[in-house]
Amino acid sequence: MTTPAQRLAELGITLPTPAAPIANYVAFTMAGDLLIVSGQLPLVDGRILHTGKLGAGVSVEQGSAAARASCINVIAQAQAALGDLGRVRRVLRLGGFIACAPDFTQHALVMNGASDLAVAVFGDAGRHARSTVGVPSLPADAAVEVEGMFQIS
Amino acid sequence: MTTPAQRLAELGITLPTPAAPIANYVAFTMAGDLLIVSGQLPLVDGRILHTGKLGAGVSVEQGSAAARASCINVIAQAQAALGDLGRVRRVLRLGGFIACAPDFTQHALVMNGASDLAVAVFGDAGRHARSTVGVPSLPADAAVEVEGMFQIS
Amino acid sequence: MTTPAQRLAELGITLPTPAAPIANYVAFTMAGDLLIVSGQLPLVDGRILHTGKLGAGVSVEQGSAAARASCINVIAQAQAALGDLGRVRRVLRLGGFIACAPDFTQHALVMNGASDLAVAVFGDAGRHARSTVGVPSLPADAAVEVEGMFQIS
Repeated sequence: MTTPAQRLAELGITLPTPAAPIANYVAFTMAGDLLIVSGQLPLVDGRILHTGKLGAGVSVEQGSAAARASCINVIAQAQAALGDLGRVRRVLRLGGFIACAPDFTQHALVMNGASDLAVAVFGDAGRHARSTVGVPSLPADAAVEVEGMFQIS
Repeated sequence: MTTPAQRLAELGITLPTPAAPIANYVAFTMAGDLLIVSGQLPLVDGRILHTGKLGAGVSVEQGSAAARASCINVIAQAQAALGDLGRVRRVLRLGGFIACAPDFTQHALVMNGASDLAVAVFGDAGRHARSTVGVPSLPADAAVEVEGMFQIS
Repeated sequence: MTTPAQRLAELGITLPTPAAPIANYVAFTMAGDLLIVSGQLPLVDGRILHTGKLGAGVSVEQGSAAARASCINVIAQAQAALGDLGRVRRVLRLGGFIACAPDFTQHALVMNGASDLAVAVFGDAGRHARSTVGVPSLPADAAVEVEGMFQIS
């Protein structure tokens, strides 16, 4: 049995110290066996990985990298919430918001950057329901935002 | 007592074989008495029923038909998850994303296509909370996307 | 121990009679210890507090007031659902949809109008996960829409 922590190490991913919200909300809440993680931006070392919009300067490859970075931050918040990612029984849902031009249609390819990472880290338990939609803009001009819901033990 | 399956038959609706996601996510997840269904597009016989945007070529009537088709696909995924739609205790929430021009304001009328179907199929158990918002674009240029959350037994 | 009802009184907020949905959906659903509240617009005395878009005529201050008004309506629906807001164990999640121009980036400041109110009313139990995104338009041309999920007893 490979653990999520081992898979992260194999992927060469060091989870960042999760970003603290700078307002009257928190990065995660828990109720029973549910863990809800706030929408995460693709913050890497304190900077947004890709700003701007898909279909207007940001490529699908860059957007996918931003989705992956956002998902790493979702997982970092889960780690902070749980102490041990082995407590994740299932990634129930990822919500993907893709900042894009009105004629952009490849949202799914962008969001795959997040989905592929979830499965790489959690295996079958990482196979999640997801909803992916376009948005005209996101906080801090981020290209992507990803939120998460987990079943935990 | 009329069952959801009987109501579908009365409505002349044959649930489609649900679309399999073509990426590292799944069409539904379950945790305890919750069933979460991924955002569904208005796929009918392998084609998107209406592409484009409300307020820019797609009429409210077409959008409502697309919302209804998306909701049929949500129900088809629930059927695949549960085997028997009689296990649906409540449609807890439908999320509606309406691709639209910035000056469009009739999102609620569009989403009624989904809401009316949920009640037609599930009766009082189909009366759901919902959030309806505009988006600049959706995967595959679909006019509408609908996601679902159910309480199940 | 100050109760949510006392805090509302101290804030000078009288919860409105919650708006009844005018379609086949409901303002809230409950399953176990979860309460889900439909997306609420900033309706005040039957009128939308601020219509239009952030970054295109609606100021951040106005948007924040609209987010606060939307959150008051979320709390009014919770009151209608529960009878006593003391049954709220935790505000699990607020979802904020900000109607905005494509170059708007201050969504977080706008949504703070909702988050600050939740904490003012519920104290630590009001500290919630949240996702905030831009949208091109909302029902009835509202500037903001807020949805909620609560853990209840």
